[in-house]
Formats: sequence, C-alpha cells, structure tokens
Amino acid sequence: MPALILHEYAASGNCYKIRLTAAHVGAGLERREYDIMKGETRSPAFLAGVNANGRIPVLQIGDRLLPESNAACAWLAHGSALIPADRFDHADMLRWMFWEQYNHEPNIATMRFYRVYVGMDNLSDEQRAGVPGRIRNGEAALDLMEEHFAAHDFLAGGRFSLADICLYAYTHTSREGGFDLDRWPAVTRWLARIAGEPRHVALED
Amino acid sequence: MPALILHEYAASGNCYKIRLTAAHVGAGLERREYDIMKGETRSPAFLAGVNANGRIPVLQIGDRLLPESNAACAWLAHGSALIPADRFDHADMLRWMFWEQYNHEPNIATMRFYRVYVGMDNLSDEQRAGVPGRIRNGEAALDLMEEHFAAHDFLAGGRFSLADICLYAYTHTSREGGFDLDRWPAVTRWLARIAGEPRHVALED
Repeated sequence: MPALILHEYAASGNCYKIRLTAAHVGAGLERREYDIMKGETRSPAFLAGVNANGRIPVLQIGDRLLPESNAACAWLAHGSALIPADRFDHADMLRWMFWEQYNHEPNIATMRFYRVYVGMDNLSDEQRAGVPGRIRNGEAALDLMEEHFAAHDFLAGGRFSLADICLYAYTHTSREGGFDLDRWPAVTRWLARIAGEPRHVALED
Repeated sequence: MPALILHEYAASGNCYKIRLTAAHVGAGLERREYDIMKGETRSPAFLAGVNANGRIPVLQIGDRLLPESNAACAWLAHGSALIPADRFDHADMLRWMFWEQYNHEPNIATMRFYRVYVGMDNLSDEQRAGVPGRIRNGEAALDLMEEHFAAHDFLAGGRFSLADICLYAYTHTSREGGFDLDRWPAVTRWLARIAGEPRHVALED
C-alpha cells in the first residue's frame, strides 16, 4: 500500500470517518492538521497543493489526492468486509452514504459547527436564517434513521458496513448540535452497537 | 435482470441521471410519474410504500427499493465500463458524485427549482434568505469544475464514467437556475463532450 497522509482537522466528523475506516481495515495514516477556524484550508498553498475546494479531509495516497470523506473511506475499505459483495447491498450502502451528505451532514454537522465552534451569538445573518431549517431537517434525518433501526440492526445488507461508519461519525455527536438523542432510542442503540465493534476508535484518538 | 421501475418526476435532474445511466448500459425502465408540486411524494402511500424520505427518484429493482439518485446510477452501472476498475479512479469517481450531492445539487439544482418551478416571487422568507448563499456556492462549484476541465476531458480516470453522467444532469440545466454558462467555457465544452457520447439521451425524452 502506498504511504497514506490524512490532511485533516481532527475534531471534524468527516475526518473521523476516515480514521475510523482506517482502524477497521488496519491501515496506518500519517496525520496533518489544519486549523479550519484560522482559514488554513483556504490558504493559496492548500488550494493549489491539497484541495482546490478548500476543505478537509483529503486523503493523500502516495502523490495522489482524494477529497470527499466518503470517497476516501471507500478507497480505504476497497476489497474489505466493510463493502458488501452483493450488488443491491453495495448500492444500498452507497445510498446511505449519499443520503448522509445531502440530508444529514448539512444539518446535524453544521448545527454542531455553529454551536461548538462558531458560537450561536456569532452567526452571520445568513447563517442564522438557515438555523430553523437545519434543525427541522436534522430532526427529519434522525426520524428516518429511527424508522430504519426499528426494523434493522445495521444500515445496509443486514451487517456492519462502511455506511454505518460514515453515518456514525456525525450521528454520535448529534447532542453537540442540539439534537437530544433521547428522542431517538433505536438510533441510540445502533450507536452503541457500532461503538462496540472490534477495532472501533473514538473521535478524539 | 429483475424488472426495473423508476419512480420519478421526469423534469428532475436527479431522475434524468438514472434514465441517462440506463440508456448508456441498455437497461429498460418502466417509469412512474409523481407530481412533486402537488405533494404526491409526501402522501402516506408514497411514504410507506416507496420512500420514507418523501423524495424521488427511487429505483425499484424487482420488489426492492433504492432511493438516492447516485446510488441508483451505481446499481445500474455495476460491472459496466462506466465504473473504473482501478481502485483510485473508482474512488475518484465517487468523490465527484459525493461532491455533487453536497456542493453542486443543493445550489445549482435548488436555484433551478426556485426559478422555474416555485417562482422567485413565491419563495418563503427562509428560502429567500438562502438565495445569496446558493448563488455564491453554485458559482464556486462551477469554478471548481472549470479548473478541473482546464486540464482534463472527463471527471475521473481520464475517461467517460458515471461521475460525468451524474454531474451532467444538473450542470447542463445551470442556465435555468440563473448561472450563465458563458462564464465557464471549459465546463461548456465538457457538456458538449458528454452530450456527444453514443447512447446519450436528452432530459425530456
């Protein structure tokens, strides 16, 4: 395997996903930290040399760069038991990972970012105007997961997969975004199930 | 192959992606139309029987249901030349597809929805407050594609892949969302390249 470097901000759930996947497949990662609160991912050097999109995480594989957390997780998990072999189950795993980026992360992760990192008193008018929608849509995302976990132990294919890792990252920090997980008991049980998997690592490792 | 039913709203770019992928791989689709403007995807029957997330498209494969457009495209393209065999190229294809759901669709597709379907005079206060951010982020998405296409003919792996199909769908309707594609000439050339691929079908087929 080529040398792997994770360009990251360690507290980001999107970066944590990649570390968690790496732990599950036994891949070693060198880690390089950028302080997003100081704009270190918007510097000319970062934009030109790491990611023109100005975002972490980026997984560096030898001399090649792979942005987008879920894509980096897919690269790491390639050929492992985290990727279902069955055609439908594989697509269903991707379904949850795409859903995470569209319905879950922009709401649940962004509310955590606002509350813990920016501070609710420091939001711009534009950010503040979007808060009710992010709360409403974050709750809807957790409702959808609750409905799923009422009948299933895992997200796709009836077993632990990459989708569980990718969804775990920001779901397990929902409280920091103001979402009281007591309202979603099946989600809470699933979180404990994922944290109990062999090789699991915590966010702040 | 099991019978395939596309639950859709034909004018949606997310539904078009699936039809375009099906055309490229030669898969036949039965189509069932729902009028999202009349709330037909929020009916109890739709929520219980098609997608608890209340959204189209959903690809029905025999008696199984697969929401999320990019996941449905991945199912259809499984084993075809649209999916790069190389591990990095495969992950890089997914990278653009995840990026599309996070950085492109919520801005460029939503502005089209506002302008063409809802009407800018009919937006809620919350929708209106988000418009400047969607324009700014949509322009940034097109800038990132422009930078990529200045040096590459396709998105991933140096050749036509599923990522090109998934990004084509809403990029080629950018003007309807108010994004003047004359500003992005390399993107415009890429659009013509994709439309010129054998087996291409137009949005309103």
